[in-house]
Amino acid sequence: MERNTGYHVAVVGATGAVGEQMLKTLDALEFPISQLTLLSSARSAGKKISFKDEEYTVQEAKPESFEGVDIALFSAGGSVSKLLAPEAVKRGAVVVDNTSAFRMDPNVPLVVPEVNENDLHDHNGIIANPNCSTIQMVVALEPIRQAFGLKKVVVSTYQAVSGAGHLAIDELKSQAEAMLKGETVEPKFLPVKADKKHYPIAFNAIPQIDVFQENGFTYEEMKMINETKKIMHMPELKVAATCVRLPVVAGHSESVYIEVEKEGVSTDEVRTLLSQADGVTLEDNPEEQIYPMPLLAEGKPDVFVGRIRKDLDEDRGFHLWVVSDNLLKGAAWNSVQIAWSLVKQDLLTRKN
Amino acid sequence: MERNTGYHVAVVGATGAVGEQMLKTLDALEFPISQLTLLSSARSAGKKISFKDEEYTVQEAKPESFEGVDIALFSAGGSVSKLLAPEAVKRGAVVVDNTSAFRMDPNVPLVVPEVNENDLHDHNGIIANPNCSTIQMVVALEPIRQAFGLKKVVVSTYQAVSGAGHLAIDELKSQAEAMLKGETVEPKFLPVKADKKHYPIAFNAIPQIDVFQENGFTYEEMKMINETKKIMHMPELKVAATCVRLPVVAGHSESVYIEVEKEGVSTDEVRTLLSQADGVTLEDNPEEQIYPMPLLAEGKPDVFVGRIRKDLDEDRGFHLWVVSDNLLKGAAWNSVQIAWSLVKQDLLTRKN
Repeated sequence: MERNTGYHVAVVGATGAVGEQMLKTLDALEFPISQLTLLSSARSAGKKISFKDEEYTVQEAKPESFEGVDIALFSAGGSVSKLLAPEAVKRGAVVVDNTSAFRMDPNVPLVVPEVNENDLHDHNGIIANPNCSTIQMVVALEPIRQAFGLKKVVVSTYQAVSGAGHLAIDELKSQAEAMLKGETVEPKFLPVKADKKHYPIAFNAIPQIDVFQENGFTYEEMKMINETKKIMHMPELKVAATCVRLPVVAGHSESVYIEVEKEGVSTDEVRTLLSQADGVTLEDNPEEQIYPMPLLAEGKPDVFVGRIRKDLDEDRGFHLWVVSDNLLKGAAWNSVQIAWSLVKQDLLTRKN
Repeated sequence: MERNTGYHVAVVGATGAVGEQMLKTLDALEFPISQLTLLSSARSAGKKISFKDEEYTVQEAKPESFEGVDIALFSAGGSVSKLLAPEAVKRGAVVVDNTSAFRMDPNVPLVVPEVNENDLHDHNGIIANPNCSTIQMVVALEPIRQAFGLKKVVVSTYQAVSGAGHLAIDELKSQAEAMLKGETVEPKFLPVKADKKHYPIAFNAIPQIDVFQENGFTYEEMKMINETKKIMHMPELKVAATCVRLPVVAGHSESVYIEVEKEGVSTDEVRTLLSQADGVTLEDNPEEQIYPMPLLAEGKPDVFVGRIRKDLDEDRGFHLWVVSDNLLKGAAWNSVQIAWSLVKQDLLTRKN
């Protein structure tokens, strides 16, 4: 095969909210594609999707769908990944998996290119894409860790419904419409489709994302805690999270309190550092009311950081406000960045 | 005058969002009223308001409006309080002021009855009602402080628009309506009417409440920090706050991280303590998805606490989720509670 003609890429979950953004991102990042295979559950198979002026018919994902595939981007739920990612690897594909299925597997690198791109060298066919709320936080924290050390993180999240898929977006919009008319609503989807109870999200804040664990934290909170330690290679880092769903369509926000190792660091030093950091856009000018907001972050691949303040009591304490489009850097953009990095570092199974 | 026939009560800012709730609360708490005077700015004077089946005409607030008034509940902005509260005191009234005008004045008690009711004994005519987001937090923290000591508080807020008045509620609703139709919106009010820039609140989260201070914190954040120390009589307490406005009509939520003095405290001990605490309703059963939410707290006077978790790294660290209707316990309800306590403790200037 001629070099550089491109790669056979498969997108699993192509009809979902993240899959949609993956296709946009493959286009935006000019990923070299020789062949594109769009896969989904049996239920969504047959749908038509356009990519670069060509129409594709979505096929049901099966083990044999991955014959000849070089890179498979998975975002169709953990159970699909558990079943089909090994099948894709068996057939020579490298999998970038956007579910939580393999994230904590010690044999699977969990990668945010700005933070731990080198971990890609240890891959065994599967690379895990971290949880959306984790990704944007570690992009903001890694430059600080490198410069000043990092001891402790306490994060409270303000998460958009798009992280829960198209159905959740529709639910927010239809509930908002009904409630504005004074009608009652019957929640069916949020906070977790498969959980026992459902609550309205419009004009509300729900302190539950994903299901509860035995320790009283939600799975989303434990993802942030465990994934942050793994990505930053800091099992000893103190991390705590409270994750909250908001009536916001797209863009997660995070109020992050950190304690660094170094004494005497100033707010301006943190600002300067982040203004030069990979993947970060500093939006921090209180005098001009410049700070990140989800409505402004939607559709952009950057991690926006602002409201940087040194704590008034703790010399090593700092507060940050971190916002990013959870479907982009939090999911699709990071996955395609990983795929590009695999290409550039010549880490695919089949060399093109 | 015969004892117990009631008091001459004045409500300043009677047409506002808080004033409206003050009247409802005076009614709900069966406050003994012999005469009611409803006051406002010149702009709102002349409006008619019903209270207990009687119609009142709102009058423009002037120094002489307070002749004969026993208790004046102020909630018409700091500048009105600064001008007229001393005039009311001069005429023999005791003022319960819901603005920030006198809160940090060392001669003015800043009172949440569940926490520091005794401070009322030191009043000199004016008692300050704390900021809404402060009140609900200290109601939840005081029982913990008493039992286990308190060293550190880091809070991130999720605040409703009703705290910014009727105009902000209207702005949220009209923006949501327009955005659902795909129309563009022109924000005019939030985050701060008098500030330079305005941002949409519908489907957004704005990390600015009140104006920025020189230290990079907003005034709302500094209110939470300074008022908490004053109410709890703990100038040495470490407190940090990040305050965020949400597209929620009523009900502030708070993600609170604390560190207590005592070692070895369990989550269940904190739960038991709060289940018995004055003014607190415990809503904390992860298995049954029971936790506080603003939509459920609206119209109720309690402070709801849930999502209580011991930190996974810090033995003395705990996380709480605290929700309350900011117009009730956060404003009107607390003010009327203070007035009732003044009556019961015989602390009014004119004895009835």
